Amino acid sequence: MTDSPGSLMAAEIAEQPAVLARRLEDIADLEAAREQLSAARPRFVLIAARGTSDHAALYAKYLVEVRLGLPAGLVSPSAYTVHGARPDLHDVLFVAVSQSGGSPDLVDSLAVARECGALTLAVTNAPDSALARGAALSVDVAAGAERAVAATKTYTAELLALQLLLSGAEAARDAAAVPEAAARTLELADEQRMAAAAEACAAERIVVTGRGYSYPSALEAALKLMETSYVSAQAFSGADLMHGPMAMIDSSVPTIAVVSPGRDGDAMAPVLERLGELGGPVVRVGSLPGARPHGAAAAELPIAAEGLAEHLHPILEILPLQRLALTLALRRGVDPDRPRGLSKVTETR
Amino acid sequence: MTDSPGSLMAAEIAEQPAVLARRLEDIADLEAAREQLSAARPRFVLIAARGTSDHAALYAKYLVEVRLGLPAGLVSPSAYTVHGARPDLHDVLFVAVSQSGGSPDLVDSLAVARECGALTLAVTNAPDSALARGAALSVDVAAGAERAVAATKTYTAELLALQLLLSGAEAARDAAAVPEAAARTLELADEQRMAAAAEACAAERIVVTGRGYSYPSALEAALKLMETSYVSAQAFSGADLMHGPMAMIDSSVPTIAVVSPGRDGDAMAPVLERLGELGGPVVRVGSLPGARPHGAAAAELPIAAEGLAEHLHPILEILPLQRLALTLALRRGVDPDRPRGLSKVTETR
Repeated sequence: MTDSPGSLMAAEIAEQPAVLARRLEDIADLEAAREQLSAARPRFVLIAARGTSDHAALYAKYLVEVRLGLPAGLVSPSAYTVHGARPDLHDVLFVAVSQSGGSPDLVDSLAVARECGALTLAVTNAPDSALARGAALSVDVAAGAERAVAATKTYTAELLALQLLLSGAEAARDAAAVPEAAARTLELADEQRMAAAAEACAAERIVVTGRGYSYPSALEAALKLMETSYVSAQAFSGADLMHGPMAMIDSSVPTIAVVSPGRDGDAMAPVLERLGELGGPVVRVGSLPGARPHGAAAAELPIAAEGLAEHLHPILEILPLQRLALTLALRRGVDPDRPRGLSKVTETR
Repeated sequence: MTDSPGSLMAAEIAEQPAVLARRLEDIADLEAAREQLSAARPRFVLIAARGTSDHAALYAKYLVEVRLGLPAGLVSPSAYTVHGARPDLHDVLFVAVSQSGGSPDLVDSLAVARECGALTLAVTNAPDSALARGAALSVDVAAGAERAVAATKTYTAELLALQLLLSGAEAARDAAAVPEAAARTLELADEQRMAAAAEACAAERIVVTGRGYSYPSALEAALKLMETSYVSAQAFSGADLMHGPMAMIDSSVPTIAVVSPGRDGDAMAPVLERLGELGGPVVRVGSLPGARPHGAAAAELPIAAEGLAEHLHPILEILPLQRLALTLALRRGVDPDRPRGLSKVTETR
């Protein structure tokens, strides 16, 4: 491994198709967990996470609402850890998602949830972690050691595992094509496209937007940009953007719009129209390669989503955006493997 | 009413103590609704909202988790309206919060929730709105017509109503002191303090942070700043800030930290310490007047919270921050009563 800036992050971005393929080779553990969850017949699902994993948690919330037809919520760990809430969690599935499995507030929240009657599930990249050991069920996303501070491969591995757990019995069949699609999506994120997107995003503040399944992609992209390039990147759901924050966007603010083909992408039409009127550079993520979407964009970052169900698109959408964060960081003379002020495991209580 | 810039917003900010007092004069309707909710014995609470009301919804989620001891989640309306999710919502209380009661995705989500078996409650400033008429129970926050585009008095009126509905039987007694405390908090937000805070916040990007009950205050302050001053204001829970976004903060980025006395403020200690090391100007919101907190701050915006329960602090915390948004907008030559690209009712589907 060389020491050149960003080499760790670059390697881990490139490794993702292999990580996803390896995880899919043997999913007996995931299938067993999925069947136990199903047999428990939970009525509500709570999901707890921090940072990058919180975006995987939001993805899981959509899966639960749309694919499992259950009401779901994201947990505020501080309600349990700071305020001592002890809710009645019978009939509740409590899912904690964490790369390291080491964040004390998640470990404590999961312990409280278990005491309060919830069925607990830990989804981590660390099967021996306190979080995994504390849960009734534990799943290893098996991304291998992540050395870059900015999480990349653990994020897509979390999305894949959550999809296999929370998306019904056809999940494994649906996911089979994902590793190949991820490889092709990274091929599409070539130097030329990255240069055009980085050019468009040469600014101190950037807005990222998407709806539904693609909203977690927008949030995760914004976090990567903040962590590695130190720009003020803000993510909004397309709907929320129309409720106020649109006012701060002018022609100097680049926007990244995640508009993969499907219901969520279609629902972004009025947002794209408004952004077009505002006149700033728009980077569009998620078009099919070769498609000619309406309206001009400063750059297109396509995904190889042909034939893939819409709820799997987020695993692809983030790939060119991770590479964009890396590209922008290097252009700004920042080493994304050494972000200032961050360490790999963040301890919050 | 004069036409001078910001006069509408200024008047509605100043009106809040009177609005809160008027709402508390007769709470028979709120008490009746609270008793109906309690009798229905919901096991799970879902809350749906957009924009400013979404921050009131997050406040309500904390109340439900901490004060009622029930699991709760914020709804993604698009799961219902874009993806057609039809979850089983028996035993679920579904609360929709909206100033106008007119946002189509909220009206549709509430109708779906009702079909799916939820007990539905609308909290609006428009008792004849589609949302209020569509709900089994409806509560009027009674803030009077809000003419400024940036919501101020409807936000605090929503917080007060939600507190009276979702905070147990002592809620009315707890809230009695709020109008007077709000009046005193606005007195404390005098020209001198506003000038110091505005000076500290003279930047294109600002970070706002708080934990627990104060996190909605941070989110709402950031939205006000974006809507009225067009700065990139980003809000993070104190815990999430430590998981990545801290990297983008340097001495050029002002931060506003909401650290009212109590558990949430105490939990902000490591965040304040880190912000102090980074060296940018820090505006501290929520100290008691006359208190001498540890560490230097560029400006202090105290709240008159003596003797008030911690879960009522958010009604006060936002007051100086609304006035700060107004002050910053006027300093930047922007009329906050006419934010570009926004209208009072936002229609998203």
